[in-house]
Amino acid sequence: MKPAGQTHTLAVVGASTLLGKEILEVLKERAFPVARIFTAGGAETAPDLPVLDLGDSYQDDVLVEEPEDSEPDYVFLADRLRPAPEGTNLGLLHSAERLAEAEHSKVIDLGGFMLPKAGGAVRIPSLEREGRAPERLDSPATSYYVAPHPAVVVIARLLLGLSERFAVESAVGEVFGSASEIGPRAIAELQKQTLNLLSFQKIPQAVFGAQMAFNLLPRLGRGRTQPGEPAPLERRIRDELRDYMGGHVPLPALRFVQAPVFHSLAVSLYVRTREPAPLAALGEALAAPGVRLRRISEGPPSPVEVTGSSDILVDALTADPAHPEGFWIWAVADNLRLAAVNAVEIAESLKSGGP
Amino acid sequence: MKPAGQTHTLAVVGASTLLGKEILEVLKERAFPVARIFTAGGAETAPDLPVLDLGDSYQDDVLVEEPEDSEPDYVFLADRLRPAPEGTNLGLLHSAERLAEAEHSKVIDLGGFMLPKAGGAVRIPSLEREGRAPERLDSPATSYYVAPHPAVVVIARLLLGLSERFAVESAVGEVFGSASEIGPRAIAELQKQTLNLLSFQKIPQAVFGAQMAFNLLPRLGRGRTQPGEPAPLERRIRDELRDYMGGHVPLPALRFVQAPVFHSLAVSLYVRTREPAPLAALGEALAAPGVRLRRISEGPPSPVEVTGSSDILVDALTADPAHPEGFWIWAVADNLRLAAVNAVEIAESLKSGGP
Repeated sequence: MKPAGQTHTLAVVGASTLLGKEILEVLKERAFPVARIFTAGGAETAPDLPVLDLGDSYQDDVLVEEPEDSEPDYVFLADRLRPAPEGTNLGLLHSAERLAEAEHSKVIDLGGFMLPKAGGAVRIPSLEREGRAPERLDSPATSYYVAPHPAVVVIARLLLGLSERFAVESAVGEVFGSASEIGPRAIAELQKQTLNLLSFQKIPQAVFGAQMAFNLLPRLGRGRTQPGEPAPLERRIRDELRDYMGGHVPLPALRFVQAPVFHSLAVSLYVRTREPAPLAALGEALAAPGVRLRRISEGPPSPVEVTGSSDILVDALTADPAHPEGFWIWAVADNLRLAAVNAVEIAESLKSGGP
Repeated sequence: MKPAGQTHTLAVVGASTLLGKEILEVLKERAFPVARIFTAGGAETAPDLPVLDLGDSYQDDVLVEEPEDSEPDYVFLADRLRPAPEGTNLGLLHSAERLAEAEHSKVIDLGGFMLPKAGGAVRIPSLEREGRAPERLDSPATSYYVAPHPAVVVIARLLLGLSERFAVESAVGEVFGSASEIGPRAIAELQKQTLNLLSFQKIPQAVFGAQMAFNLLPRLGRGRTQPGEPAPLERRIRDELRDYMGGHVPLPALRFVQAPVFHSLAVSLYVRTREPAPLAALGEALAAPGVRLRRISEGPPSPVEVTGSSDILVDALTADPAHPEGFWIWAVADNLRLAAVNAVEIAESLKSGGP
C-alpha cells in the first residue's frame, strides 16, 4: 500500500548490516512515505546469524530497488561508503566527497562515517519535540545530520531530564556494549567461543581479539588505541554527547566495556546533584514517552529483556549511602532499534520541516 | 612433611565451599604450620562442578580431621555457622555466640558471618606490611578479624596506593561479580542457562532469579533489597571499605553488577585527583608486590585471564579526555584466591605477633 501525499526516495548504505536492516524495518513500521528505496552495499553482510538471533523478519515487503543515477531525498549511512563497484550508477553513495556535494540529498549518518568530510549536527528529535534539547548555536545550513550512538540518546535523555529540575554537578558513566554493536561476525564469534569453551575446544578470536565469552573486556585486544587514549567508540560517544549537550549539563566521565552479551546496550550512571534530592523526585524527572521506570519490587531491566523494544528501560534509582548527593541509574535499550528509530525520526522531522 | 617449630590447630567452617577449598589450598601452598585441621559443615557443598571449572586439585593431602571438643587456634569462617548436628563435638563452631565466647580461638571471618555478634577489625596484612594501611583507632582487644571481600582488598590497595602521592578527591567504582561469588550452584546454573539458551530450551533461574547467561544484572531478581537500598553485597563492600580506609581516602561511590562470568572479579574505578597528574606517575604509585600493571600495547587484563593467580592485574590507566583531573582504572583478581590469601595472611600475621 503506497502512502498518500508526498513520497520520498531513500537510500540505505549498508542495508545488509544489522543496523541497515533495522532501519528498513523501522521505516516500514512507521509507514514512512517511501516511493523507492535504493540500497548500496555495506562492508558487512549478515550470512548465517547464530541461533540466538531473535529471528526478526526484515524488509520482506519493503520496495527495494537497485541504485540509479539521481539524488535520493534521504540517505541513511549505516555503514562506511565503499568505492563504487564497476557498472554501478549512483556513484555518490560510494564516496564521502561526492555525497557531501550532493545538492538535494539529506544525509543521516548513523556511525560518524562522514565525519572527516562534513561538519554535521547531532540530532535527537524525541528530545527536541519535548523541548528538552539544549538550545543549539545556529549551525550553518547543512544537509548532513549525525544520528548519534544509542548510548548518547540514552545518556542525553537521562541527564537532560534530570537537569530540568535538579542541578547536576557531575556524572560518571559506563556503557556496556553487546556483540551486535560490532556486527554479525561478532555475534557469530561470541556464540562459537561459548560452544567451544563448553566443549574444551580452541576458540576463534578474530573479531574480539580475546576470549569474550564468559568474560569482560574494557577494550578489545590488539592495540587499537594510542597509549592513554580512549577507545574509538568511547571517543565517538563522548564527542557526540559534548556536541549535543553543550555546556548545558556536565559531560559525564565515560568508559566503554565490551560484555559477553549478544544484543542491546546497558548504561550505568552515577550522578551527583548539588543538593541531596529525593529518589522519587529524581525518578519523576526522568519520566518521558519511551522511558519506562522500574520499581525496586520488580526485577531489574537487563540487556536481554529490552531486545526488540523501542523503549529505554530504567531501573529504580538507588541512593549511594556514602554520598548524600549521589545516586545510581541503570538503563538498558536495544542499541540497533534505538539508533534506527532516532535516525528515521531525524528524516521525519526534516520532512515535516521542524523538530 | 610436618613443619618444624610451633604448629597450630585450625578449623575451617564451610570447608566444602569454593572459598573453604581455596583456604585449604592456600594453607598447603604457603606451608602454614598445621598440626590438625578440623572442618565443619557449611551450607554449600560442591557436587558436580561444571566443565568450565578449572579442575583445581583441592586438599588432597592436607590433614583433615573431624572436630573434637577443644578450641582451635584459628577458625576460618568460609560459610555461615550452622546449628550443631546430633553427636557433633566442637559445638562452638556451630553458633556465633559460642564462638564469640571462645577464650583461645582467633576467628577470621571471610564473609561477615559473625558481624551481628562481634565487632571485628578489617585486616589486609599485605597493605599493613608495606606501611600503606591507614593508622587505625585502637580497637578493643579482639579475637575476631574481618577478612574483607576481595573487592575491598583491590579497591583499598589502589586508592591507598594513589593517595600516598596524590590528593584523591573522589572515586566512583563498579564491581563486577562472577558466579563463583555465589557458589557452585550459581556456576552450574550459568552453565546450564548457557547450554539451554543455545538449544532453545527453558532455562533454570533458581539462583540468579533471571537470565544471567549473555546478560548483565545490576541486582539479582526477587527483591532482596528494600526500596532505594543497596544490595547486601554492595553494602558489605562499602562498610568494609569505610572501616578500613577510614577518613584517609574519600570513600568511593559503589555499584555491584553481576556479570555472566564463571570466575574472578573485575573492578572499574574512576578517580579524580585535586590536580591533573601524569598517567605514568599515577601508575607508579600503584606499584606493589602482587600488583601487575599492563601496558596499553598489551591486551587488557580480564576476569578469565586472572583465574588461578594471586595477583591483581591492572590495565594501563586511561585519562578521561573530558576531565583533566579524572582517570580510569581497570583491575581484575581471582576473587576466591585473593580472599583466601588475605585470610591466611591474617592468621600468619597473628601467629608472628605483628602485621
